Amino acid sequence: MQIIGEKINGTRKLVAKAITERDASYIQNLAKKQVESGAHWLDINAGTHPSREPDDLIWLIKLVQDVTDVPLCLDSANPQALQMAMKEVKQTPMINSISGEPSRLEGVLPIVAEHGCPVIALCMDEKGISNTADERLQVIQKVFTETRQAGIPDEHIFVDPLVMTIGTNTEAGNIIFNTMRLIRREFPQAHISCGLSNISFGLPVRPLINRTFLVLAIEAGMDTAIIDPTDRSLQAAIFAAELLLGKDRHCLNYTRAFRAGKLEIALEKSG
Amino acid sequence: MQIIGEKINGTRKLVAKAITERDASYIQNLAKKQVESGAHWLDINAGTHPSREPDDLIWLIKLVQDVTDVPLCLDSANPQALQMAMKEVKQTPMINSISGEPSRLEGVLPIVAEHGCPVIALCMDEKGISNTADERLQVIQKVFTETRQAGIPDEHIFVDPLVMTIGTNTEAGNIIFNTMRLIRREFPQAHISCGLSNISFGLPVRPLINRTFLVLAIEAGMDTAIIDPTDRSLQAAIFAAELLLGKDRHCLNYTRAFRAGKLEIALEKSG
Repeated sequence: MQIIGEKINGTRKLVAKAITERDASYIQNLAKKQVESGAHWLDINAGTHPSREPDDLIWLIKLVQDVTDVPLCLDSANPQALQMAMKEVKQTPMINSISGEPSRLEGVLPIVAEHGCPVIALCMDEKGISNTADERLQVIQKVFTETRQAGIPDEHIFVDPLVMTIGTNTEAGNIIFNTMRLIRREFPQAHISCGLSNISFGLPVRPLINRTFLVLAIEAGMDTAIIDPTDRSLQAAIFAAELLLGKDRHCLNYTRAFRAGKLEIALEKSG
Repeated sequence: MQIIGEKINGTRKLVAKAITERDASYIQNLAKKQVESGAHWLDINAGTHPSREPDDLIWLIKLVQDVTDVPLCLDSANPQALQMAMKEVKQTPMINSISGEPSRLEGVLPIVAEHGCPVIALCMDEKGISNTADERLQVIQKVFTETRQAGIPDEHIFVDPLVMTIGTNTEAGNIIFNTMRLIRREFPQAHISCGLSNISFGLPVRPLINRTFLVLAIEAGMDTAIIDPTDRSLQAAIFAAELLLGKDRHCLNYTRAFRAGKLEIALEKSG
């Protein structure tokens, strides 16, 4: 399981404040803690101010690269910001994201192709997000047509089926699990990724729902998760799910995680 | 999800002591606590002394029926003990268990057929327990041939695929999940049940493995679990899994469980 650390995200209040105030140590701490907790990639999102985004993104990239060698996942839909960022990165970053929306494909795909970047591809297009697994597959098939034409290998694509909240649609979980199974079958070389916290929005004891979702998503074929890697409950669920699904030979990863103290689950508060 | 409470089991040390000493209140407390925690059936196992088993079983049945109306699951391979027990039960009990072993079929099947009992059917025969899902299915197909001939409807059969420990076989989880999927497809009217704690034998943080196994087993088709219903971590995992798999319309069961205080997870100790 590859983990993309989600915490350096300018749409979060405290991160936005740190960016505005140029609070380097706050950002660098977020980077270091996520890497210590096992992040394989660090998502970098500079927030939603179009005019400031390129400068803020460059500032974040430099800061994070000063304290860690983990590759970055540049979370921006702004081709100009991404172009500038490509000149600063020390190693090939992942791009977050493209989708079936023509504007996004036109602006971001050439950058992905030119620099050989892995890229997250969202199962949506200009019509929005469909409510069936079959239609989400159709949308992503169109995206693969474009990425293949651009010479991007399937194994560089990280498909995100786009998690909605189960609180407003009882089928939200099944739509995701079924979409993942279809993608795994149609595009066996591609990766499957997702951010999961939307699933539990509005419901109580969200960590319970999130970690249970993670287990079911791994079973359905997810191999990459955009999560808070410092959340031990999620990490423990990943170790246990991989163990039970036969992906942990001789239980080595599980017992190693135990000895490293990673399987002690903290007390959960409700609500 | 139907829950069979596993705690009144004479192979457990303290229960064996209570049976020997005729400690009625210890047994009745176990019964009441399991029912309060949501058990739909109470497993009753009088232990392994062949000569004492019938008397001990009758004593247990009477005690438990004095404090609860929940149906019993008579856990015995002894036809004589079961015949005597059938005269004492106030409502039709489940029988635990038959298997592909001829001695077990000959002795227990007539009782099951005569009294219209639901029955747990183990995926094993006189050759033992196979290491592949296909062979476990073949064994249970032979059992269904027998139960159908005896006029027992498929919906009375609770197939137990027999969980082995993942500590000695990395595929132990997949064998169970695959067996469950095969049974669900071949015998759609039958139930699928299992006891799960074997899976984590010998490994650290067993509750983490057990509850993760439960989630994956529910996904694979399990609809009945033989567990400790007072274990809140397992109960919480069931509510979350059913929610995410679209089996909890409008999240009613989940939010009701939350309001009843059933989703607060206790602190787990490692080891």
